[in-house]
Amino acid sequence: MPVDVRIVEVGPRDGLQNEKTLVSTADKIELIDRLSATGLRSIEATSFVSPKWVPQLADAAEVYAGIERRPGIAYPVLVPNETGYDRARAAGVAEIAVFTAASEAFNRTNINASIAESLQRFTPVLDRARADGVRVRGYVSTVLGCPYQGAVPVADVVRVARALHEMGCYEISLGDTIGVGTPAAARAMLRAVAAEVPMPALAVHFHDTWGQALANVLACLEEGVAVIDSAVSGAGGCPYAKGASGNVASEDVVYMLHGMGVRTGIDLDRLAETGNWLASKLGRASGSKVGQALAARG
Amino acid sequence: MPVDVRIVEVGPRDGLQNEKTLVSTADKIELIDRLSATGLRSIEATSFVSPKWVPQLADAAEVYAGIERRPGIAYPVLVPNETGYDRARAAGVAEIAVFTAASEAFNRTNINASIAESLQRFTPVLDRARADGVRVRGYVSTVLGCPYQGAVPVADVVRVARALHEMGCYEISLGDTIGVGTPAAARAMLRAVAAEVPMPALAVHFHDTWGQALANVLACLEEGVAVIDSAVSGAGGCPYAKGASGNVASEDVVYMLHGMGVRTGIDLDRLAETGNWLASKLGRASGSKVGQALAARG
Repeated sequence: MPVDVRIVEVGPRDGLQNEKTLVSTADKIELIDRLSATGLRSIEATSFVSPKWVPQLADAAEVYAGIERRPGIAYPVLVPNETGYDRARAAGVAEIAVFTAASEAFNRTNINASIAESLQRFTPVLDRARADGVRVRGYVSTVLGCPYQGAVPVADVVRVARALHEMGCYEISLGDTIGVGTPAAARAMLRAVAAEVPMPALAVHFHDTWGQALANVLACLEEGVAVIDSAVSGAGGCPYAKGASGNVASEDVVYMLHGMGVRTGIDLDRLAETGNWLASKLGRASGSKVGQALAARG
Repeated sequence: MPVDVRIVEVGPRDGLQNEKTLVSTADKIELIDRLSATGLRSIEATSFVSPKWVPQLADAAEVYAGIERRPGIAYPVLVPNETGYDRARAAGVAEIAVFTAASEAFNRTNINASIAESLQRFTPVLDRARADGVRVRGYVSTVLGCPYQGAVPVADVVRVARALHEMGCYEISLGDTIGVGTPAAARAMLRAVAAEVPMPALAVHFHDTWGQALANVLACLEEGVAVIDSAVSGAGGCPYAKGASGNVASEDVVYMLHGMGVRTGIDLDRLAETGNWLASKLGRASGSKVGQALAARG
């Protein structure tokens, strides 16, 4: 179990892009500014994927221009290709994230490419990022299951994670995109990847579709992972199961970590207030039990 | 990690007694009959606590008389004292559960007795149960925190659990009544109790008030516990935090166990259907993420 854990807050990006309710640009900026005041060190701000695919984040440039970028906090943005990279750089972005899937079927279906082709498509982005001094985070999705092919071989997860690391990603986030995994599988997957990519360069990213997210986080902490992606208020959803739960809630992860004496540097009360504020903007109850309990307490 | 786990379904009792919505006697009977068809081996049916304290379960005798009691399934009922024992026996009950708290302040506030006095009050009930061949399960509540005194010393949990075991309870359920515990504390508490009471005689009972329930279950499974209390649809609530979440959802526990190759004998689809049916009777979304995901899938 690590002594310090870094939370990568993905609510403004992975959360909001999967919410039905559109959030205004001003509210997105307020969300990120509020998050910046909680002690978080990494806040994924938005996505420069084409608005055609992600209309929820069509205002990426405005959001990035509008937020207060505090020293010591990273504000990565998602970038799918060189066009996205150009837009992100024009907006002044200093850190990006690229993404691919460990599932051949997922890549085929979503971007009409094999895993190998998908990785090749990053090469120019990563080359330019390196030249520009832009840090790059890598996402591997469908690490514990795929909506198209079902099971995903651990060897494929390892291969993709290693490739992203070799291509220069400083950190690889391993994502259970459809939230189907259970702790033993999560642990085995992480262990296999950590045999090829150093654990300090790995993060885990769980969705709570089947209620397993926090238990999976615990199993991975016990394996030594020290970076966890989560979304305030449990924002998000699952595009493959309408109405299902979203990302694991940051509040619930932080509550667990602090309860176990693991440091995050985060002010949990302030984080939960932000989560409940976001829930009110989304017109629903918080997806965080901690947020619900604090709201119930009044 | 155990190979087989027994789920003690507490939805009809601990769940319904903490739900705002009253469920009709006929629906309670249908709930238990549906649960009996899922493969569950223990279903806590109701409570013979005074209707003055638990109006939701005032129909305990009618419910117990109305259910189909299948061979091989235990249908324990909660009994607070000899009056409750008399009512339960008159209804034909063959297994009971008694309860106390590990917190002095909780006992003082709720039943105006010290822990020692509370245990003394059971003595006649346990004596009669022994003479009648009635099996007795024991609950220890507030094992990881108390709404009145805050922290609860592990030594007090151990003392109360050992006393119940010595008094003849075949199984002791260790309950985080207010759902505040985190995995390291849950693990340490269980380990301390298991040093005095054999692990096969222990169960764990988590509420999801702060979102930690399934992670706590996982930690306790890793310590070797093989009996888990849970409530279908995550029924219940927390009397100390209005609007907060209830018991850990049976569906989510079973999903996790089956995903890790642990056997329960339960048909998860049938269990989740029952949970979603109960949620419809309670007029709310299921408190089980598995139930929600299945409903979203349609």
